[in-house]
Amino acid sequence: MSAPRMLTGDRPTGRLHLGHYVGSIANRVKLHQRYESFFIIADLHMLTTKNTREDIEQVSRNAREMVTDILAAGVDPARATFYLQSAIPEVGDLNTLFQNLVTVPRLERVPSIKDMARDAGKEEIPYGLLGYPVLQAADILSVKGQVVPVGKDNAAHVEVTREIARRFNHLYGEVFPVPELISSETPTLVGTDGQGKMNKSRGNAIALSDDPAAVRRKVMGMYTDPNRVRADVPGTVEGNPVFAYHDVFNPDRGQVEELKARYRAGRVGDVEVKEKLAVALNRFLDPIRERRARFEADSGLVDQLIVEGTERTRAEVRRTLVEVRRAMGLTSAYSQVRRRAERHRKAVATPA
Amino acid sequence: MSAPRMLTGDRPTGRLHLGHYVGSIANRVKLHQRYESFFIIADLHMLTTKNTREDIEQVSRNAREMVTDILAAGVDPARATFYLQSAIPEVGDLNTLFQNLVTVPRLERVPSIKDMARDAGKEEIPYGLLGYPVLQAADILSVKGQVVPVGKDNAAHVEVTREIARRFNHLYGEVFPVPELISSETPTLVGTDGQGKMNKSRGNAIALSDDPAAVRRKVMGMYTDPNRVRADVPGTVEGNPVFAYHDVFNPDRGQVEELKARYRAGRVGDVEVKEKLAVALNRFLDPIRERRARFEADSGLVDQLIVEGTERTRAEVRRTLVEVRRAMGLTSAYSQVRRRAERHRKAVATPA
Repeated sequence: MSAPRMLTGDRPTGRLHLGHYVGSIANRVKLHQRYESFFIIADLHMLTTKNTREDIEQVSRNAREMVTDILAAGVDPARATFYLQSAIPEVGDLNTLFQNLVTVPRLERVPSIKDMARDAGKEEIPYGLLGYPVLQAADILSVKGQVVPVGKDNAAHVEVTREIARRFNHLYGEVFPVPELISSETPTLVGTDGQGKMNKSRGNAIALSDDPAAVRRKVMGMYTDPNRVRADVPGTVEGNPVFAYHDVFNPDRGQVEELKARYRAGRVGDVEVKEKLAVALNRFLDPIRERRARFEADSGLVDQLIVEGTERTRAEVRRTLVEVRRAMGLTSAYSQVRRRAERHRKAVATPA
Repeated sequence: MSAPRMLTGDRPTGRLHLGHYVGSIANRVKLHQRYESFFIIADLHMLTTKNTREDIEQVSRNAREMVTDILAAGVDPARATFYLQSAIPEVGDLNTLFQNLVTVPRLERVPSIKDMARDAGKEEIPYGLLGYPVLQAADILSVKGQVVPVGKDNAAHVEVTREIARRFNHLYGEVFPVPELISSETPTLVGTDGQGKMNKSRGNAIALSDDPAAVRRKVMGMYTDPNRVRADVPGTVEGNPVFAYHDVFNPDRGQVEELKARYRAGRVGDVEVKEKLAVALNRFLDPIRERRARFEADSGLVDQLIVEGTERTRAEVRRTLVEVRRAMGLTSAYSQVRRRAERHRKAVATPA
């Protein structure tokens, strides 16, 4: 009995930050122990909103950074297959075959597509962006993924994958597992500026690869309770990003509770709260940094993992496509033509 | 100087009828002399509205019938490359890469898509049907087609191809010719029942492969002027399908004018008009039947043409995809990863 197969992954946006860690990476570090894990580097998905030469030129570096961060966060390379989506053209073939198994109104009901278009500054939705869930179905089903970890944003996408798998199996016979969703909370982490989600492009992010001094500097510059003009003014803990981080990253619960009590009473300065957060964060990041340093010292190792993973995945995807085309009857359509042609060629070569 | 390259073709619906001949085949017989001609057997397009196993099982036979009819109609196999679209999976890859170069509202403005959905009895438009013009762009541009014959129904589709070619070239450098549309009138032929276009599924079609007796029988049963209850009642020529066919297929203009005059004056019976039409039609079809008989006698020859054409086209498409991926920077993205991985592999194999 082999472990069920899991597919997970991200668009190659470069170095990961604490928001990614809290939102998905921590969960994957846990999950990948229980499943045969495929980590997609989804550069074709990136193209739905970012498709200039300049965007694509960053894929190679961003892919390496992202995979290094995932490994540094604790994913065991012996238990994970990393692969570059665009290096497997058969995924595009499957995507094309899946496009007739779902309707436009169905895709228009997927809530996150319009948000993605707006975030990317697109007034009109690119056709490929509306089909994001179809390409995702091709990713998941091309490796016959059985489980997919989802947060609230992408559960609706993977629901489309389940529908496509069922529709395909109904039309052409059982080829695909109908993947199960593993729902997790995917908490969001507020940025250091307290203004919405942590996001590299907003400059409010702490990267997993930031060094201790950078972390300390970013923490000391964090937004706190704006009404607290002096240390002896009672402050608000709720919605205060400094305490939000303490709650997530400081394992010394006693210290956190004591700081909260003193903060509410106006008996602690922001500086002390932040100093203690910087210490806690750097302690949290230290093992990640150590692992990162090991992977970086072995220059090219991460690339080699991506290449091996891509080759292995491509072989899987090709096997799936053979099954898909056979089930649909496309293989048979062409092979009938070829058999008759072959008989003709032989008959002409050896006239009676 | 090689001739410009033309792409044309149809979904594999089986035997062709006089409506196909008048609407497109006659034009292609002329055009294919002047261009390097690719004839696509567009079975992936068929899947946008007909995608059951039963539909796909008919592709092989329908493809052969259709190609036989095109050859019988006068296309020279030495001047045409026939190919089966689904046997070239790289087209699906290109389709996936093109999907981000056009928006959903743009595709929704293509007028024929909704008609196609309605004709196919689809209440909701399949995602792949909305993307019909994108897949068509992949067909045309994957062989770097320079000219595309269009009628009023598909000019808007090919306009999307031109936009995708320009958009691609703008983003990634000049890879594609922007194909020219060759507009032709594509007259429609009314069915033998006088109720709309000739259409096999309405049972009002005369096939190019019908034998003389079948043609005569269908003509004798044709709808004419319903007010003309006897031969001495003056009849109406305009909108009368029997005379519409005389106009198109009877080269004896004198005879046609004489019949019209007598019909208007109530001096000719329907039977005589129809007998003369049957003779004219069978004369028109005789050389087509002769060529058809030659291709059918050489059993498997048509299949061999399809196989050779498909192999030749696949090689072309693969070359195009290499260029496309190189221009977009996707080749470089993965090869950078591979080069670093290779250096790592060598370094590990030969430690200092």
